[in-house]
Amino acid sequence: MVSGGLDSAVTLAWAVSKGYECYALSFDYGQRHKFELKSARKVAKALGAARHEVVKVDLSRFGGSALTSGVPVPKGRSHKAIGHGIPVTYVPARNTVFLSLALAWAEASGAYDIFIGVNALDYSGYPDCRPEFIRAFQRTANLATKAGVEGNKFKVHAPLIKLTKAGIIRLGRKLGVDFSITHSCYDPAPDGTPCGRCDSCLLREKGFREAGV
Amino acid sequence: MVSGGLDSAVTLAWAVSKGYECYALSFDYGQRHKFELKSARKVAKALGAARHEVVKVDLSRFGGSALTSGVPVPKGRSHKAIGHGIPVTYVPARNTVFLSLALAWAEASGAYDIFIGVNALDYSGYPDCRPEFIRAFQRTANLATKAGVEGNKFKVHAPLIKLTKAGIIRLGRKLGVDFSITHSCYDPAPDGTPCGRCDSCLLREKGFREAGV
Repeated sequence: MVSGGLDSAVTLAWAVSKGYECYALSFDYGQRHKFELKSARKVAKALGAARHEVVKVDLSRFGGSALTSGVPVPKGRSHKAIGHGIPVTYVPARNTVFLSLALAWAEASGAYDIFIGVNALDYSGYPDCRPEFIRAFQRTANLATKAGVEGNKFKVHAPLIKLTKAGIIRLGRKLGVDFSITHSCYDPAPDGTPCGRCDSCLLREKGFREAGV
Repeated sequence: MVSGGLDSAVTLAWAVSKGYECYALSFDYGQRHKFELKSARKVAKALGAARHEVVKVDLSRFGGSALTSGVPVPKGRSHKAIGHGIPVTYVPARNTVFLSLALAWAEASGAYDIFIGVNALDYSGYPDCRPEFIRAFQRTANLATKAGVEGNKFKVHAPLIKLTKAGIIRLGRKLGVDFSITHSCYDPAPDGTPCGRCDSCLLREKGFREAGV
C-alpha cells in the first residue's frame, strides 16, 4: 500500500530489497488533495513496483474526518500534543478499508504478503496504526478468505511499526529512497507546497532533523 | 448491509423490528448485473430504512470470481455439491471489504450496530459467512477505530447465521417481508428473470419448498 508519503515509500523499498515482486496499491478515497496520488505514482515507478493500481472508494461521503471534509486541519501543535489523543484528521476505519481492498487484490492475484507503512511511535495517534490492530486484521484475513481456509496464510507486514520517524528516514536512506518525490502534508497549498505546520509536516521535519538528513 | 437478496431483506426487517433506525448500505462492486441494486432500493424503501446509500468500489478489476468476470456461473449443481467446497462464485475478501465500509459509515455517523445477512447453514460455502469470521471482524473493528478505543463497542449482528434457508423465509414471513421484490439469482436473463439453476436460485427454491411458502 503506497500513499505517496514517506513511510509507505520506505516500506515499498524494504519489500523490494527483500526480493518481493511488488504490486503497489493507492487509494483515491476523497482526500482533500490529490498531490499524494501523484507522489504515489512517482514512488511506485522509482522503486520498481511491477504494477501500480489506484482504487477509487469515496470515504468522504461518510464524513467524520478533517482529511475528507471542510473541517480545518490543526496547525502548529506541539510534539507533545501530537502524541496524545486521536486527532480530527483520523478517517473512520480507513486502514481497515484499505487493508480489505489490498486483501481482495492479493487473494485474486495469488499473493499472500501485504505491506503497510504504519508506525506506532512517531505517529498521529491513529488506532489503526497499532500492532494489535495489524495482528487482528491478519487473523480476520485468514478466516475471511478461500486462500486462508486452504492454508495459504496471509501475512500483513508492517516493517516500520516500531521505528521512530528518524529511524524510518535512516532506513529509507540506506535503501536509496528519494524522499524528494514523497509527499506527507495534510493540507498543501494549491501548487502542492507543504504547509509545514500540520502534524504530518511537523513529524516529518522532526524526523529529518533527528536523523541528521 | 442490503444486497437486494432474500437474506439481507430479512436481516433489515429483523433490525427494524428490534427498534433500530436503519441506514441501509449497498455496493456497486462490479457485479455481473445490477438487478440486485434495483431490488436493494425497493427493499430499503419497503422496510422503512431511514436512508439508503449505494457505494461504488470496483472489485471486478482484481478478478478472481465468476460473479465479477466472464467465468461462467455453475448451473444445476446438486444440493450436496453446493454444500461442499468454495465455489467459483466466491469473490475474494468481499465481505471484509463490505464490512469495512459499513464500519466506516457507522463510525462516522455514531452508529455501533452493524447488521449482515450471512448464513452458515444453507449457504454457498463462502468462508466470510462463518461465525468465526464475523467474530474476528468485530474484534478488529473495535481495535481499528476511535469509537472502539473510546469504549463505544461495535457489534456485528448476524441474526440469520444459524438459520436454515427455510427458517429465514419463515422469519421473513412473520416480519412481513415481501419476497417478490428480492432478487437472489447470480446470473439472471437480460430482463432480470432468475436463471433458476445457479446455486443461489437452487438454495432459494429449496428454502421456499421446505418452508411451505
